[in-house]
Amino acid sequence: MQSAELQHLIQLLAKLPGLGPRSGRRAALHLVKNKQTLMHSLMVSLKEVYDKLLSCSTCGNLDTSDPCGICTDPRRENSSICVIESVADLWALERTSSFKGKYHILGGVLSIQQGNTPDKLTIQTLVDRVAAEKPQEVILALSATPEGVTTTHYLVDALKSYPVTVTGIAHGVPIGGELDYLDDGTIYAALKERRPYSS
Amino acid sequence: MQSAELQHLIQLLAKLPGLGPRSGRRAALHLVKNKQTLMHSLMVSLKEVYDKLLSCSTCGNLDTSDPCGICTDPRRENSSICVIESVADLWALERTSSFKGKYHILGGVLSIQQGNTPDKLTIQTLVDRVAAEKPQEVILALSATPEGVTTTHYLVDALKSYPVTVTGIAHGVPIGGELDYLDDGTIYAALKERRPYSS
Repeated sequence: MQSAELQHLIQLLAKLPGLGPRSGRRAALHLVKNKQTLMHSLMVSLKEVYDKLLSCSTCGNLDTSDPCGICTDPRRENSSICVIESVADLWALERTSSFKGKYHILGGVLSIQQGNTPDKLTIQTLVDRVAAEKPQEVILALSATPEGVTTTHYLVDALKSYPVTVTGIAHGVPIGGELDYLDDGTIYAALKERRPYSS
Repeated sequence: MQSAELQHLIQLLAKLPGLGPRSGRRAALHLVKNKQTLMHSLMVSLKEVYDKLLSCSTCGNLDTSDPCGICTDPRRENSSICVIESVADLWALERTSSFKGKYHILGGVLSIQQGNTPDKLTIQTLVDRVAAEKPQEVILALSATPEGVTTTHYLVDALKSYPVTVTGIAHGVPIGGELDYLDDGTIYAALKERRPYSS
């Protein structure tokens, strides 16, 4: 019913996260309907990204230059490195404009199920960076999952022989969150990590 | 934070139906992560569809040939034309394998809001096809919306001087549907269009 070319495009679009077979069809039709505008732009844009985008050999960020714009930005502080799992986490942190240091993308967390052994992640690169760049602080901002916690412990251990303060981001009640709707783990963490109000 | 190229790709992906800014970011990252497999295939596939796909000048279907595969298929009956709004509707009908005639894609329904006047749709082409191909039946399968019903009435009127039976698809309780959860309009239609059981 659909030409082979269109069917292939639908199958590929359906592989994108958030899309499935039905929305893949809708997306393909939308592209064909807007052939000269959206479809052509998307083709050009994909080629640009495909040709130009690099992974920063220092921190793992995606950019058109290596080292990336953040690693070479003189306004960013060299005194702290924030360790995160993925580029998506870097974007999320950058959106808040609350961190002015450098990043280090781990490429995931330790996981036996996913075959993520320490050598699959950029742990050695992080240790080498800490040794060479001598930051004052390494902030661990990994997921609050069992695998994330395991990885955090592993990193604390790997960095313990270096003169650097290793910190972890706070866990607790999300802003706007109601206690009644929160899971027990979060309430436990929020209570355990309670802080005095500065008077 | 993101390179201009990546930001542009995210913006374009976010324009696809079913995606937004957040899922556009996820889709872009997924593409970059699977650069040699998914991203490259998508680039090739988009170019194929962009270069080869045509709109059938007879029925409006999308195919690599004009007239399209359905219009030139000798196994399809010439005796009936099914009038639908879009290519998506054609695909939906073809998935059921329940119609063996030809199609006619209207390109939408009459709508003052969307600026769809009769000359914006392929109504004249349909009338010309009926005059030339002399089908026995024209099946109107438009949306059961006020605009769809208006368009159906308009088409019935436009075709009334031709020796052709104009029919409409049935409205009623969907298969698997429970009366209690159906809207009043559907229940009214189902009751009004009730049929005797053949004994």
